[in-house]
Amino acid sequence: MVPRGEIEARLARFQAALGEAGLAGALLVYSTDLHYLAGTVQNAHLVVPAAGEPALLVRRNLERARRESPLDRVEPLRSLRDLPAAVAAAGIAGGRLGLELDVLPAAAYLRYAAGLEGLELVDCSRLLRRLRAVKSAWELERHREAGAQVARASAHVPGALRPGMTEVELAAEVERLLRREGHQGFVPFRAFDGVSTWVAVLAGPSGAVPGGSDTPLVGTGPSIAVSKGASHRPIEPGEPIVVDIVGTSGGYLADQTRVLSLGPLREPFPELFAASRAILHAVAAAARPGVAWSALFAHAQELAAGREGFMGAGEERVSFVGHGLGLEVDEPPYLARGFDGDALEAGMVFALEPKFVVPGAGAVGCENSYAVAEGGVECLTRAPEALVEL
Amino acid sequence: MVPRGEIEARLARFQAALGEAGLAGALLVYSTDLHYLAGTVQNAHLVVPAAGEPALLVRRNLERARRESPLDRVEPLRSLRDLPAAVAAAGIAGGRLGLELDVLPAAAYLRYAAGLEGLELVDCSRLLRRLRAVKSAWELERHREAGAQVARASAHVPGALRPGMTEVELAAEVERLLRREGHQGFVPFRAFDGVSTWVAVLAGPSGAVPGGSDTPLVGTGPSIAVSKGASHRPIEPGEPIVVDIVGTSGGYLADQTRVLSLGPLREPFPELFAASRAILHAVAAAARPGVAWSALFAHAQELAAGREGFMGAGEERVSFVGHGLGLEVDEPPYLARGFDGDALEAGMVFALEPKFVVPGAGAVGCENSYAVAEGGVECLTRAPEALVEL
Repeated sequence: MVPRGEIEARLARFQAALGEAGLAGALLVYSTDLHYLAGTVQNAHLVVPAAGEPALLVRRNLERARRESPLDRVEPLRSLRDLPAAVAAAGIAGGRLGLELDVLPAAAYLRYAAGLEGLELVDCSRLLRRLRAVKSAWELERHREAGAQVARASAHVPGALRPGMTEVELAAEVERLLRREGHQGFVPFRAFDGVSTWVAVLAGPSGAVPGGSDTPLVGTGPSIAVSKGASHRPIEPGEPIVVDIVGTSGGYLADQTRVLSLGPLREPFPELFAASRAILHAVAAAARPGVAWSALFAHAQELAAGREGFMGAGEERVSFVGHGLGLEVDEPPYLARGFDGDALEAGMVFALEPKFVVPGAGAVGCENSYAVAEGGVECLTRAPEALVEL
Repeated sequence: MVPRGEIEARLARFQAALGEAGLAGALLVYSTDLHYLAGTVQNAHLVVPAAGEPALLVRRNLERARRESPLDRVEPLRSLRDLPAAVAAAGIAGGRLGLELDVLPAAAYLRYAAGLEGLELVDCSRLLRRLRAVKSAWELERHREAGAQVARASAHVPGALRPGMTEVELAAEVERLLRREGHQGFVPFRAFDGVSTWVAVLAGPSGAVPGGSDTPLVGTGPSIAVSKGASHRPIEPGEPIVVDIVGTSGGYLADQTRVLSLGPLREPFPELFAASRAILHAVAAAARPGVAWSALFAHAQELAAGREGFMGAGEERVSFVGHGLGLEVDEPPYLARGFDGDALEAGMVFALEPKFVVPGAGAVGCENSYAVAEGGVECLTRAPEALVEL
């Protein structure tokens, strides 16, 4: 349950931001945004005027929404036809209304546009996600718990690895270990049509298989339908086994990557893994409030200079070295090229994942999640980083 | 890999349907539709003129798309700015262009609308999903394999159930059993903001917890973020344990529900479970080509008459008794109220899930997946149906 004080503080920040952006209000329907601002993901519309009292209009289940949400106004919405009147009743009578246009399907948008006469529908996702990027003390505690969950599960990963196993078999064992530690079994991915993978096991050449995802490593995946992540290929001795895990607590995430091998890890991976760790630590040490998001990517690139395959091979290289974490795994801050005008703030949480790809052979990388504090960062994923050679 | 003959036959049907509907062509981007019509889910746009040669325009990864797709024209798309020219080059110079407006985000739709001058953008999802609902012999074989996978995993479920386990712990064991049998670890759910759950374990009162999903059973779920499915509640002796599984093979699905209990199942569930099985068998026996989708729901309702809690309790009742299956779990046919003008056809695949809810106490139900053949239906999920009392 999300405490009332959290919801009140978030709504106050959101309403102030709406006002500053010249919006009359917002109409939100997406689960992670409802979770953040209303404390429930029941099927509902959240109407937030820039000034005045928000209302959660619930299609189903009303009783459950009332039990979960600290909002005072949690009311039934019998039909979408009642929505325009409810928006007006919340004090939004004209002007610009913010919707989550990055996720709202076009068909739904067109229905809202037809029903909400006199309002200009604009995107408010960027504004809201930017607010969500700065976590409260309560949220940081959830992120710490997610990191601790990953550490507890990680301790059992070497014991779960057996010769002859496939990537999928190891991934399934890791998923079970995380579930045992309270994992919610799902990680929200906001980008369009994204498959949520919360455990990726990529061994040997699989680590170097590119794909449709905007990530440094993709992998073959178990089927055409899921063309990323662990495959049915047996893990072979000496190849790098990349284990990328996203833990969850109260919906908040912690992202970690470690590397194992059956027997001694073959060349050139030990040295590349050491380079990844060195970059990870140097970039983390440079992260503090005021540093531009893009500066951390540039710093990582500098440190990797002269080495092939940093953040992907050839044309498949991605232009980032890390991403924010919150209720979704693809949040701001983006430690990426182009974000020169955006700076880290205390309370931001991000994953840092310097990785190296050797075409045809594999990939390695060490990834941690960090919370930005006044003087620097706090590491949330504290499982031992050292290469595990079994 | 999807055979060339499959892709050619599907595209021919889709192009004919586009022509009949008066569309000049379609521009598709959603993974399940790309899987169906191009044989790959790489990041790409598929341009399909009503007449002429389709082109798959790939953002990433081109090599992988070329290896996976049997299409002759698989070409790079460097920038979205090149899309209007590519659409025109495919022979779509004016008129109505079909997009997947049920899933395409509004922001993307607005960008396409701004770039594709001279074309009227309309929804073609319904048309395509209706075609996808009728499976080929090759697709039916995949569905059979998915059913066999569920049966193999189901055989080990009683052995995985131990006193004191939570729902999540049992769900994790079942997921691992399915993974071991080749499950892809993800089940696409097309409806907006749907969490893909492929194993739901609901024990005792959890089976009666309603929620935001349009399903007869929802459950508490493991966290606010995932407010459905298995919870962290320990399973107690005598209560019904509903185990709902979706298997996968080559992306195609099979959906099954069975019921277990620790010790003798308490009243009134044994009798309700028997009623569920009787309705399941009677409705399946009535299913054949030409029968209206809604008639099967009406038939199920008739058979359940006089019993409380059929397909949900009170206001939470849903108005369907089954749903289609294919590459997605929420496909046509919809065995639901209102679908009087739609009839079953040979090659359709659906899950039938008569379930009963007893408020505060639990739920039971027996669910199978069926393929429609000329004379009736073929059951795809053949694990023993009988209640398992351990």
